[in-house]
Amino acid sequence: MMFKKTLLSAGVAIATMVSSAAFSSAAFAAEKVDLLIKDATVLTMNTEKAVLENGVVAVKGNKIVAVGNADLADDYVAKTVLDVDGDIVMPGLINTHTHASMTVFRSLADDVPDRLHRYIFPLEKALVSRDMVRIGAQLGNVEMLKGGVTTYADMYYFEDEVAKTVDEIGMRAILGETVIKYPVADAANAQEGIQYAVNFIKQYKDHPRITPAFAPHAPYTNTTEVLQQITELSLALDVPVMIHLAESDRENEVIAERSGGKSPVQYMADIGALTPNLIGAHVINVNDHDIALLKKHDVGVAHNMSANIKSAKGVSPALKMFDDGLRIGLGTDGPMSGNTLSTIDEFNQVAKVHKLVNQDRAAMPPVKVIEMATMGAARALHMEDKIGSLEVGKLADIIVVDTKAPNMVPMYNPYSALVYSAYATNVRHAIVDGNILMQDRDISTVDERSIRDQALQFADKVRESVIASGEQVQ
Amino acid sequence: MMFKKTLLSAGVAIATMVSSAAFSSAAFAAEKVDLLIKDATVLTMNTEKAVLENGVVAVKGNKIVAVGNADLADDYVAKTVLDVDGDIVMPGLINTHTHASMTVFRSLADDVPDRLHRYIFPLEKALVSRDMVRIGAQLGNVEMLKGGVTTYADMYYFEDEVAKTVDEIGMRAILGETVIKYPVADAANAQEGIQYAVNFIKQYKDHPRITPAFAPHAPYTNTTEVLQQITELSLALDVPVMIHLAESDRENEVIAERSGGKSPVQYMADIGALTPNLIGAHVINVNDHDIALLKKHDVGVAHNMSANIKSAKGVSPALKMFDDGLRIGLGTDGPMSGNTLSTIDEFNQVAKVHKLVNQDRAAMPPVKVIEMATMGAARALHMEDKIGSLEVGKLADIIVVDTKAPNMVPMYNPYSALVYSAYATNVRHAIVDGNILMQDRDISTVDERSIRDQALQFADKVRESVIASGEQVQ
Repeated sequence: MMFKKTLLSAGVAIATMVSSAAFSSAAFAAEKVDLLIKDATVLTMNTEKAVLENGVVAVKGNKIVAVGNADLADDYVAKTVLDVDGDIVMPGLINTHTHASMTVFRSLADDVPDRLHRYIFPLEKALVSRDMVRIGAQLGNVEMLKGGVTTYADMYYFEDEVAKTVDEIGMRAILGETVIKYPVADAANAQEGIQYAVNFIKQYKDHPRITPAFAPHAPYTNTTEVLQQITELSLALDVPVMIHLAESDRENEVIAERSGGKSPVQYMADIGALTPNLIGAHVINVNDHDIALLKKHDVGVAHNMSANIKSAKGVSPALKMFDDGLRIGLGTDGPMSGNTLSTIDEFNQVAKVHKLVNQDRAAMPPVKVIEMATMGAARALHMEDKIGSLEVGKLADIIVVDTKAPNMVPMYNPYSALVYSAYATNVRHAIVDGNILMQDRDISTVDERSIRDQALQFADKVRESVIASGEQVQ
Repeated sequence: MMFKKTLLSAGVAIATMVSSAAFSSAAFAAEKVDLLIKDATVLTMNTEKAVLENGVVAVKGNKIVAVGNADLADDYVAKTVLDVDGDIVMPGLINTHTHASMTVFRSLADDVPDRLHRYIFPLEKALVSRDMVRIGAQLGNVEMLKGGVTTYADMYYFEDEVAKTVDEIGMRAILGETVIKYPVADAANAQEGIQYAVNFIKQYKDHPRITPAFAPHAPYTNTTEVLQQITELSLALDVPVMIHLAESDRENEVIAERSGGKSPVQYMADIGALTPNLIGAHVINVNDHDIALLKKHDVGVAHNMSANIKSAKGVSPALKMFDDGLRIGLGTDGPMSGNTLSTIDEFNQVAKVHKLVNQDRAAMPPVKVIEMATMGAARALHMEDKIGSLEVGKLADIIVVDTKAPNMVPMYNPYSALVYSAYATNVRHAIVDGNILMQDRDISTVDERSIRDQALQFADKVRESVIASGEQVQ
C-alpha cells in the first residue's frame, strides 16, 4: 500500500484502496477513450467525498467514463494523456451568480453609497450596448476559465451576445435575460424585456452547453404581475428564473409596503413565484421561516459572500441553509461588486466570515466550502445530475489545480489548501464538455490578448462617459 | 496634457502635472543611475498619496534618487531600464507579523479547537529544529517575495537560521527570537531564550537589511519579570520587541488573574513594557483606553485580519487605531494561521470585513488598505524613515504589479484594483535595497525549485510525526 500523502479530515472517506472496478464503466482492458488524466489527487466530490491518491479520470466524448486509482490507467488507451504529477483534479467550479459583461466597469466607484440607483443604473443607461455586453462577457469568460470556473449563471442585458461568447470559448452557462420596470438598453419596459427573453430562450433552448433563462432583476424592481407572468412562462418553457432576492434594505421596504409587511421571500411565496425553477441570488435578509419556504419550494440559492460584505449588506445565513439541505452554491456577483469572477476568490472569505459570525473556528470547514463551489452550486442551478462531481456518467467539466506553487506547499489536506491558500491563478488546466479549453493557463479557443485589448479600448469610452457626466469615483 | 488614464478617488492628489524637479535630486541631465523604471503607474504612498501617470522612478545604489513624470527619464542614464508598460509601481509590501518557518506545517489541522496548546505546541516540540526553521523560512521567503513582500517581521525559534535565509535571498526583515516560559527547541526556559536572543542580536546588529529583535511570545506565556527584563534589554540594545498582544480569551483570563482584572494592554503599560520599541501583533481585545495607551507609548500594531477571523477570535478595531493615528500595518500571521504570506491576500478581507462590522460600504476604502500595507506597516515597525513609500532618499524597495491580467482589467482606480482584484501572483518584479530580486516572477538569488523540493521532503517527516502521534487533522 502506498504511503498516504494526504492526511484527510475526519469524516472524509479515504478511497485509496477502493477497487477501480467500483468506479469504472470499463469492464475490459484497453478501452479507447479521448482523455486520461493520471497521477492526480482527485477530489471526486461524490456523496462520500472520496479523495483518490494517484487517481485517474477517463473521459470519452463529453462524459466521464471512469474515476479510480492508478491501476485503472492500464484499462484505457487515450488520445490525450494528462499526467498531472500529483496536482488536484476536481470538478470545474460553478459560479452561481454573476454579471460577466460588467467587467468593463470593474474598479469604478467601488465605495459609493446608494451605488446601484445613483451610479450603476445611470452608467448602464449611458453605456450598455451589444458591443459592451460582448466585450465584457469575453473578458469575463477568460477570467472565469482561467480561474477554474467552467459553468456560470449570468444575469444581464443582450444575453444573446453573452451566449455567442460562451459558445465561442466552449464554457457552460445559464444565461438570464434581465426584466426590469425601468427603460434599459434592450427593452423600453418589462413587457419588452419579457419578449426579448422569450425570443432568446427559443433561440438557445436546444444548445448543448447554454441554458437560456429569465432574469427578473429583483422583486422590488418588478411588479407582482410581471413576476407572476415570468413564473408561468418559465414553467411552460421549462427554463430557470434568476433573481436578486432578499438582498437589500430598499427591497425590504418596497416589498413590505407593497405586501402589507411581508418579507421578500414570503411575498414571493404568496404570489406563487417560488418554484423549483427559481434561483435566488444573495438571500441575506431571511429568517428561519423564509429559509423553510425556500426549501419547501426547492429554490436554488447563490451565496455571494464577497459582494455582500463589500457592500456592508450583511452575512447571509448560508451555513444554516447548507446544513438545512437547501440547494446552495457559491457565486461571485458581478465585477463591480465582487470584484473578481473566480469563486476561488470567495473560498477564504466564505470559510472565515462564517467562522467569525458563528464565533466558531470549526464552522464552515473547507470541505463544505468546496462542496458549495461544486455539487452545492450544481444543485443550486438544478444541474446536479450533469455536473458538480467527478463520477461516471457526468459531463466532463474538470479542472487541474497546481500544488507546487509556493502558496500550495505543502499540502496535508487538499480542501484546506484550496480554501485557505489557493489563488485563481493556481488553476493549470480547464476541461469543459470533454474539451481541454485551457492547458497550462493558455486558452485555446479564444485570443486572450485581443479580448483584453478591446476591453481596454472600451474602458476609454467608459472614462470619457464618466468624466462627461461629472460623476466621480469616490 | 495627457489623457488621464486613471480616475482617482476624491482626496487623492493627482500629480500628473507636477514638475519632475520637485521630486528629483537630479539637477542636470544624464545623471548616471543604476535602475530606471519608466512608463509606470506610480503609487508613491507619500503624504499626499500622489499617483503618477507615466511615472518614472530612478535608483542609485540602494536608494531612490528620483520619482517623477515621464520627462524625468531624460535626466538619467541607467544601467538597467525597466519599461513596465503602465503597470503599477509601488513600495514593496511590508508584512508586519509572521512565522515564516511554519510554512512546512501549512494546511495541517486548520480548524482544530484549542489549536495552539493542544496541537501546535506539541507539533513544534516534536519537529522544530535548525533544519526545519531554515527549510520553512526559505519557502516562506520565496512565497513572500513572489507576493510582493520585500520586508517582513518574523517571530520564531533559531532566528539566526532565518537570518541566513534572508541574507541569502536579499530581502529585508526584523527577526525576533522567541522567549517563552515553556521548554522549546532552542531554549529550556525563558532565560535561555533571552540569552539566545541576545547572542543573535549581537551577531546581526549591524546587518544592512536585518534587524534582530526580541520576541516574547505573549504576555500570558511569560512572567512579569521576564517581560520587564526584555523591555530593559531592548532599550539598552536599541532593538525591537515583538509580541502577540490582546489576541486570545486565554490571554485575557491569565492576565486578569495575574493583575487583578487588568486588560493585557493595561497590564503591559503598568509593568513598563509599552515602549516605542514594542510591536504588538493581533491587538483584538482592546478598548478605547487600551488604544490610547498604545498611542501614548508609540507602540506599533500588526493587524492580521485573515488569521483573526479564521480563528474566530474577532475583528481588531484596526480602523479606529488607524484613524486615531496609531502606528498600524498589515500582517499575515504564520502559514498555519493565515495561511498565506503575501499581504495582498489580506487586502480584500481587511477592506470588506471592516465595512461589514462598521455597516458602511465606504469604511476602510482601498487607499487606507494600501497605506496599511506600505507606510502604515513601515510606521508599525518604526522604519518609516527608510521604507514604505517611493520618495527620494528612501531605500529602493519597490514592486511592479501586472495590470494586464484579466482580473486587473480595466483599472480605473489603482487602489481599488489592488485591494479588490489583485492576486499575489500579479506581482511581476520585486526590488529590494536596489537589487532586482525577482523579474517576471523569476527569483535570481535562490533556487525556487530546490527550496520547494526540500520543503516537500520535510513535509513527509511532518506526516510521519503526526501519524505517529495519533493526532488527526480535524
